[in-house]
Amino acid sequence: MKPSFSIIDVRPFGAAPVDVRVVDGAIASIAPHERAAPPLAGDTVIDGQGALLLPGFVEGHTHLDKTTWGMPWYRNAVGPRLVDRIENERHWRATSGHDAARASRSLALAFLRAGTTRLRTHVDIDTDAGLAHLDGVLDTRAALADVLDLQIVAFPQSGMLERPGTRELLDAALAEGADVLGALDPAAIDGDPAASLDLTFALATRHQKPIDIHLHEPGELGAFTFGLLLDRVEAHGLHGRVVVSHAFCLGELPVAKRDALLERIARAGVALLTTAPASTPVPPLNAARAAGVTLFGGNDGIRDAWTPYGSPDMLERAMLIAMRYDLRRDDDLATALDLVTTEGARACAFERYGLAAGARADLVLVDAETVAHAITSRPPRRLVMANGTLIAADFSR
Amino acid sequence: MKPSFSIIDVRPFGAAPVDVRVVDGAIASIAPHERAAPPLAGDTVIDGQGALLLPGFVEGHTHLDKTTWGMPWYRNAVGPRLVDRIENERHWRATSGHDAARASRSLALAFLRAGTTRLRTHVDIDTDAGLAHLDGVLDTRAALADVLDLQIVAFPQSGMLERPGTRELLDAALAEGADVLGALDPAAIDGDPAASLDLTFALATRHQKPIDIHLHEPGELGAFTFGLLLDRVEAHGLHGRVVVSHAFCLGELPVAKRDALLERIARAGVALLTTAPASTPVPPLNAARAAGVTLFGGNDGIRDAWTPYGSPDMLERAMLIAMRYDLRRDDDLATALDLVTTEGARACAFERYGLAAGARADLVLVDAETVAHAITSRPPRRLVMANGTLIAADFSR
Ligand SMILES: [Zn+2]
Ligand SMILES: [Zn+2]
Repeated sequence: MKPSFSIIDVRPFGAAPVDVRVVDGAIASIAPHERAAPPLAGDTVIDGQGALLLPGFVEGHTHLDKTTWGMPWYRNAVGPRLVDRIENERHWRATSGHDAARASRSLALAFLRAGTTRLRTHVDIDTDAGLAHLDGVLDTRAALADVLDLQIVAFPQSGMLERPGTRELLDAALAEGADVLGALDPAAIDGDPAASLDLTFALATRHQKPIDIHLHEPGELGAFTFGLLLDRVEAHGLHGRVVVSHAFCLGELPVAKRDALLERIARAGVALLTTAPASTPVPPLNAARAAGVTLFGGNDGIRDAWTPYGSPDMLERAMLIAMRYDLRRDDDLATALDLVTTEGARACAFERYGLAAGARADLVLVDAETVAHAITSRPPRRLVMANGTLIAADFSR
Repeated sequence: MKPSFSIIDVRPFGAAPVDVRVVDGAIASIAPHERAAPPLAGDTVIDGQGALLLPGFVEGHTHLDKTTWGMPWYRNAVGPRLVDRIENERHWRATSGHDAARASRSLALAFLRAGTTRLRTHVDIDTDAGLAHLDGVLDTRAALADVLDLQIVAFPQSGMLERPGTRELLDAALAEGADVLGALDPAAIDGDPAASLDLTFALATRHQKPIDIHLHEPGELGAFTFGLLLDRVEAHGLHGRVVVSHAFCLGELPVAKRDALLERIARAGVALLTTAPASTPVPPLNAARAAGVTLFGGNDGIRDAWTPYGSPDMLERAMLIAMRYDLRRDDDLATALDLVTTEGARACAFERYGLAAGARADLVLVDAETVAHAITSRPPRRLVMANGTLIAADFSR
C-alpha cells in the first residue's frame, strides 16, 4: 500500500479549485475545494495554493534508445538526405560507444521530472544492432516500472524488406517484450508497399500486437500507401489498433481527396501522430477532429544523430503544436494540450488515464492561470506525481 | 569611466578559449587564453571556465508597447480575421488600464536579463491613442539608456490612409524621438498602395529617417506592393535604409519570380525581417542569402492581444528560426544565431556591434559546447554584460 495524499486547492485545467485525494496510487476522489471535508488523518497534505492541475503528460512518439541525452553534445555534420541520415546514424552508433540502456534511462528520467508519466518509444531493430536497443530500453522500463508507463515499438529503422533477417528480429522483439510492431515507409524505403504491409500485418496479427507505422511518404504516394494500409486494417479487423505517425501526405492532398481519406481513417479507427514540424506539411488539425480522427502529439527523436531538437518537456511540444496550427485563443490552446494528454492516452491505449476518480494518480502542478498560460510559459513543475509516487515537489514560493 | 573587466577563458561562438578585456564599456582586446597576459591590477576578473561567449542578442522586431508582460494572463478569445484582431486590441487597450510605459519596461528588462542588448520596437501610433504609446516607450528608453540600445519605429497599426490625422501623428512621432518610420500593408490595409507608399517615403525623407514596413500581403499581391516599394527606394536613394518585415509573399511565389525579386531587393539594399512563423510561408533563407539579401530575426508581439506566444529569450527565437528552416547541422544552426545577432545589427544599423576590439561590451556567457547546443538547450545566462555594465552574473556551478 502506497501513502495517501490530500492535494488541496488546485485548479484542474484552470477550472474552480478542487481537492484531490490519492490512495494507493490512484485518484480516490476529486471534490470542490470549497465544500471538501478536511484531509484525513494519516494523509500527506499538499497545499496547491491555487496551482493549475494537469494530468501526467503523454509522449506519443519518441526514440529513447538513440538519444544523446546526458552525453556530451553531438556535433551534427550529416548530409540532408534520408539515406544520409540512416547511414550516418548506423556509423555513429557503431563507433561512439553509445549505450541504449544508459541513454534511454537518462532521457526517461528527464521526461518524468517534467511531468510525463506515459510514453511510447520506438526502438531500433536492425541487422547491425540486433535486439541490443530493445534490451537497453527493457532495462529502463523495468527500472522505472512503478512510475513510468512505457510502451515499446519494435521499429525497423533501416527498412524491413531490404536486409534479410530483419523480419526474424522483429518477431523475436515482439516475443521478448515489445508492445507494438513498428514499420517505415513501405513504398519509399521498402520499395514494395503491398508486400511490406502484408508482412507487417501478418506479424502483428500473429503476436496480437498493435501497429505504429512511420509514414513520411509525401502527397499522392503517401495517400496511396495509406490506402493500402487501410485495406489491411479492415481485412484484419484491427480497428483502434493502428497508429500512423507523421502522415505528412495529409497536409499536401487536395481538400476533397484529403477529406475522403480522413473519413476512411476515422472509420478504420486509425489514429494519427504528429510532431507538428514547422518545416513540413502536417495533417490538418480541424479537419481531422471534425472527421472523428484521433490526432495526438510527440517529439520524435530528441538530440540524436538525426536531430538536435526536442525536449522532454511536453508543454514545449504542446506549444510547438499550437504554433504550427496557429492556435491563439485560450480555448484553442487547450486543444493542443489534449494532443499530449487525453488524445495520446486514447491513441496508445494507456489505461486508467485522466483527472477522475479511479484513474492512476499521474498529476502535474504548475503556476499558471490557464492551460494556454502553462503552454506558452512552460513554468517549472511544482509537483509531479506518477502512479501515486512523488517525483518532484517544490513549494518554495 | 566605467570599471574594467578581464573575462578569461571563454569560447567565442565555441572557438578556442580567449580572454576579453573590457574598458569603459568597450571591448579593449580579445586575446588567446593560452598566451594572454595576466589580468591587470584593478580589473574585475571573471573566470568563464570555458563557457560559450556570444555577443549581446539583437531583437529585430517586437512591440514592447502592447505586451501584457508582467501583468495577469490575458485570456484570448479573439476572432480569426486581421480586422478582428485590430479592433479587439483597440477595445482592450481602451478598457484594460494597460500602461505602455510600465509594460514596455517590464519586457525590456526581461530581454536584457536574457542577453538582448539591442532592440527595435514598433510603437502604435493611431488616432485613439495618439502618442501615448510612444511617450511610454520613450520613458523606458530613457530609463535603460545606458544598457539597452533601443530603436523606436512609429507604427500606424490601424492603417495610415483610413483615419484622418494619422499622418500628422506620425510626423509628430518622428519629431519627438521615433527613430524609424513604420507602415502597414499599403494595399491590403490602406487600400491604395501607391498613395500609401508615396506618403510613407515622403514623410521618411522629410525627417531623414529609415523605414520599416509590415508587409503581410500574400503571393502576387505582396510581390506587387514590394515592387512599388522598391521603385521608391530607388527613387529616393534609400539604399540600406529600408526593412520589410514578414514578407510572407517571398515564401509563396514561383521560384523564378521570387529569385528575380530577391535580386532587386539585394540591389536596393532592403533587408528582410522574419519571425519564422511555423504556420505561414516565410522568405527563403538560402535563396535570400545567396542573393545577398540581409535576413534577420525577431519575435513580433509578445503576449499581447494578438498572440500568446513569444519570449524575451532570443536563443528561443533562434531555435524557432532554425526549426522553421529545418536546420540540423551545427554549422547551419550557427546561421540561425546570426539572424538574431550580426544580421540584425547590420539591418537595423546598430553601431559598434560584435565580438571585436572597439565594439560595445555587450556580452553573453552560457554553458554550452557549441552555438547549436546553446540554441537547442537555451541554458540560463551565466553572464550578461551590456555596454560594460553587468546585468546578470551567476558563477555558482
Ligand atoms: Zn520516429
Ligand atoms: Zn509587428
